[in-house]
Amino acid sequence: MGESESAKKLEEEVGRVVEQAKELQDSASSFISKAATDDQSLRNRVVSLDSSIRRLRSLLSHNHHLLDPKLVDKLEEDLQRARCIMVDGDAASFLPPKTQGGFLKMFLGPINVRASQKDVQLKVKEEYNSYRDRTALLFLLFPSVLLILRSWIWDGCMPAFPVQLYQAWLLFLYTGLALRENILRVNGSDIRPWWIYHHYCAMLMALVSLTWEIKGQPNCARKQRGVQLFLQWAMMQGVAMLLQNRYQRQRLYTRIALGKAKRMDVVWGETAGVDGQLWLLCPILFILQGFEAYVGLLLLKTAFIGVVSEWQVFFCGILLVLMAVGNFTNTVETLMAKSRFKAKMKRSKSKQQL
Amino acid sequence: MGESESAKKLEEEVGRVVEQAKELQDSASSFISKAATDDQSLRNRVVSLDSSIRRLRSLLSHNHHLLDPKLVDKLEEDLQRARCIMVDGDAASFLPPKTQGGFLKMFLGPINVRASQKDVQLKVKEEYNSYRDRTALLFLLFPSVLLILRSWIWDGCMPAFPVQLYQAWLLFLYTGLALRENILRVNGSDIRPWWIYHHYCAMLMALVSLTWEIKGQPNCARKQRGVQLFLQWAMMQGVAMLLQNRYQRQRLYTRIALGKAKRMDVVWGETAGVDGQLWLLCPILFILQGFEAYVGLLLLKTAFIGVVSEWQVFFCGILLVLMAVGNFTNTVETLMAKSRFKAKMKRSKSKQQL
Repeated sequence: MGESESAKKLEEEVGRVVEQAKELQDSASSFISKAATDDQSLRNRVVSLDSSIRRLRSLLSHNHHLLDPKLVDKLEEDLQRARCIMVDGDAASFLPPKTQGGFLKMFLGPINVRASQKDVQLKVKEEYNSYRDRTALLFLLFPSVLLILRSWIWDGCMPAFPVQLYQAWLLFLYTGLALRENILRVNGSDIRPWWIYHHYCAMLMALVSLTWEIKGQPNCARKQRGVQLFLQWAMMQGVAMLLQNRYQRQRLYTRIALGKAKRMDVVWGETAGVDGQLWLLCPILFILQGFEAYVGLLLLKTAFIGVVSEWQVFFCGILLVLMAVGNFTNTVETLMAKSRFKAKMKRSKSKQQL
Repeated sequence: MGESESAKKLEEEVGRVVEQAKELQDSASSFISKAATDDQSLRNRVVSLDSSIRRLRSLLSHNHHLLDPKLVDKLEEDLQRARCIMVDGDAASFLPPKTQGGFLKMFLGPINVRASQKDVQLKVKEEYNSYRDRTALLFLLFPSVLLILRSWIWDGCMPAFPVQLYQAWLLFLYTGLALRENILRVNGSDIRPWWIYHHYCAMLMALVSLTWEIKGQPNCARKQRGVQLFLQWAMMQGVAMLLQNRYQRQRLYTRIALGKAKRMDVVWGETAGVDGQLWLLCPILFILQGFEAYVGLLLLKTAFIGVVSEWQVFFCGILLVLMAVGNFTNTVETLMAKSRFKAKMKRSKSKQQL
């Protein structure tokens, strides 16, 4: 009798589990459909608010000569505040998503990489920075070791394998960076498009340099002059990356701290407290860009004189020069935007004091 | 007076917009926190139901000799049904996520690539299949063109650039496939791990082959024998991929159709109606795997005899043989699992008729 009792008990328990599974299915499906409806209605509200703000802004700017300048200033500030609430607050998750761009689609397909929670987005950015930190160290270490071994052990002529290993690592690194930066953009980062294009160029260069013949022909030292210059430039870039990372990390921390204290101030407080480092960073960046262009021109020279007649040398030379020019103009533009912003801030402060 | 009126109206409108922005912020933040709570409670329920099912299953299997076999069968079926409701229904979105694995983390960082809606997951799978379709055509076309040009125009000795372009395309293709397959896995696909490892191997081989010197040395035709064989194998693989895609696409359609008709039958109906194609596909797959191993062994032979003494030849040879063996064992295992499953289905059908 004990057996049939336990059988009955088991049957009951199984029945309960099946019941629970059905209930769970119902709750889950009603939760999903309810959440989808709420989500859509929030999206609609965000879109309509966004268009209202735009409309009022253009109305203000078209009629500002008819109105009291003080009032115009106040209304413009109010609209800016409304925009900040929408863009930096929780409503930001319901803004129409930025299109993901061809690069992510090419590698990942149509999957959505936008994180809906603000703290996850900050975590993604933090991980990106720590990834850059780790790679910056390798960026310094890898070419240094190659150059040291070159003069100490390899007698001025590097074997192909370690150099190709380094080039393969560069290809992997730049692909990872380009993917991460595209993901950051989708998550609302204001990263300049050029820095992403720059990594596309670097990917292409790493790929091309893999097919580049670097083995010891009769005049090895002369043939490897380009590689040697490239490695020296890479070492310098490692140092610059480490400095840049420190700078951007402090910017992020300022952002988080301000975000906690007063969400709306986020956009205004970005450069606080890190100006000192910027004036250390800038000369290094400019020297690096100059050296990049120099290496590019040297490669072009070797290609034209005919020391190394492979198309890869010519191609890499052009790419390096292009990248140097692009880096330079974008750094200058960033600096100019920063100083313009500062001047504006000063003006509005002195106005407030009046 | 008209001016001050319109100014007042504008001021009111701006005030309303600021108000709307604040309201929107409140709704958004309450929606997000409510959704997070509900989501968490559903997650907890799924986890507890899952552990109940596991417990009852092990209880059944330990005590099945004490119980009526018919009852055991019925209870087992009930538990299976409960599990199906949980795994295939809407509750599936709340199952603990599969860990994303190192590969995705390496390229993308900590971003979540799991789609919460079932239809998005199916869209991802559909896009993966159409991506494979497109690449299968190129897989057929690219090597064919190279081989045709080789015998018609290049006089038996291919120039380096087009071959390297092809190898770079392969590297890009396999990286894209490996990323997509990892994303599919995170989204609940039951893809065998081997096929992903296989694409890692193929990535590695494409990378290594890029550093492989293929230019016309004294005995060009002999040196390029390996490349030629590889291209022939790639053509065959294009045909096999096209066939495989058709097969898997039909499997997916069956799945969607059954999912709409009767959600619980999904797991049982996978192979319905496509068995005929499987017996066309299998011999082609086996021939392909044989040819893959043959190319690998030929490469190893040329490396050992010393016609081409580069390490890349040796490395690619070993990789090809490994991939062929892995492909073969996994195809056989899949077929065996399918036939075991069929036998089980037949048994349970004849039981039901009894």
